Amino acid sequence: MISVVIIGTGNVAQNLASALYGVLEIHLSGILGRSEASVSYFEGKVNVILDWMEIPKADIYIIAVKDDAIKEVSDALNVEGMVVHTSGSVGLDALSKHERRGVFYPLQTFTAGKIIDFKTVPMCLEVFNEKDMEILETLGRKISNKVQHIDSAQRKVLHVAAVFVNNFTNYMYTIGKQICNENDLDFSILYPLIKETAAKIETLSPEAAQTGPAIRSDLKTLHGHLTLLTDEKHRTLYKLISNAIKASNQNENEEKL
Amino acid sequence: MISVVIIGTGNVAQNLASALYGVLEIHLSGILGRSEASVSYFEGKVNVILDWMEIPKADIYIIAVKDDAIKEVSDALNVEGMVVHTSGSVGLDALSKHERRGVFYPLQTFTAGKIIDFKTVPMCLEVFNEKDMEILETLGRKISNKVQHIDSAQRKVLHVAAVFVNNFTNYMYTIGKQICNENDLDFSILYPLIKETAAKIETLSPEAAQTGPAIRSDLKTLHGHLTLLTDEKHRTLYKLISNAIKASNQNENEEKL
Repeated sequence: MISVVIIGTGNVAQNLASALYGVLEIHLSGILGRSEASVSYFEGKVNVILDWMEIPKADIYIIAVKDDAIKEVSDALNVEGMVVHTSGSVGLDALSKHERRGVFYPLQTFTAGKIIDFKTVPMCLEVFNEKDMEILETLGRKISNKVQHIDSAQRKVLHVAAVFVNNFTNYMYTIGKQICNENDLDFSILYPLIKETAAKIETLSPEAAQTGPAIRSDLKTLHGHLTLLTDEKHRTLYKLISNAIKASNQNENEEKL
Repeated sequence: MISVVIIGTGNVAQNLASALYGVLEIHLSGILGRSEASVSYFEGKVNVILDWMEIPKADIYIIAVKDDAIKEVSDALNVEGMVVHTSGSVGLDALSKHERRGVFYPLQTFTAGKIIDFKTVPMCLEVFNEKDMEILETLGRKISNKVQHIDSAQRKVLHVAAVFVNNFTNYMYTIGKQICNENDLDFSILYPLIKETAAKIETLSPEAAQTGPAIRSDLKTLHGHLTLLTDEKHRTLYKLISNAIKASNQNENEEKL
């Protein structure tokens, strides 16, 4: 039996609690929140704790709070078990108060009110003392089929890559929606395209999947699109990304937008 | 019964043929290709035609060729039925040789060797003579549950929006893969994140789904990421898109990258 306390009540904490709750040989001993309101999601499901003095003893404490609060929470935590955080961009050293420290980073995007199937979430694990890997890996394997050892340097790189494929991709959706809205078109007409673009990735490399006027160096269509884009920010992005795609096709000597 | 001839043998033609083949009250009379090699995919399944003089009579001729070949193919076509093309960015006037002309644009990305379930593909229809809409709509509804009337102006705007959510998103995947490769990380670790980013769109607007250091104006993480990006093109895109996301959060007076 591995006992776990989660510190934090946000989307990651909610998803972790949901994944850990009721799993054989795991005991979710409690969730620590800052206020009654913050723990309302968990009430009736998990032992909620509002008082730091009442944190139960546990094998692993998972700090699932905002990046810039991790160090502060870690420093305030007086416990004997292992302490891990769940961040992609914060180093292991933020937990340096605790000899037994590690990282338990779920490489996924979590949304309020949406519980993800954790079995498919890559769990990126790191420990300070190698002997702590066994228990963290056991915990990881209980909830996910994709447990990997990723050190801090790799994790930071992964986080940058994640910013491109998630944050920036989502911003492309935002622009697509803005263009639709400005022209009285329903953004939902693009949902099947958005889903297929992502689904393709498992059978085709993104280089091979690249289509559109930029990769074809179809200047007529590219210029036509620019005349349709009225927002200067959209135009700037359109030019820059199109030129980057054109260049990836070894057409660097061709006319740029 | 509606008889159809497809002109072209690429990904769109293959997917259309697969969707139309065997459907009740549709007769796929033939596929016209330029060479034996080009029609090999269809042989044994559909009547393949290599000689323009042997094009069968049909109710609808679907020109599914590259954008810049549509006008030329249309001009070479001496037929009496209705002639439509399948392009998002070419106007109806490319078919001006034919009085009965229209557009039959599937708003989806098609990949060699991958046949899509057409039922979910938005079919964007346009006709020159209003009386031709009935037959085109009947054809559309036979293969898709999402038939819409979209005129040339709207279609061109949709195509720009599609470039952002498909072409540019796919390029974000390419960069994610390059960052992984440069650091000996397997790109496939990002697949679940990519899929969930797209899946989210049906339950959450992209504005509400935006996460990451840029929307939080987390300059420490943003600058940290820039130190990790070695490719100048990646750095430029990272700065531009991050600044756009920051600005969307009404933080326009804050420090830019």
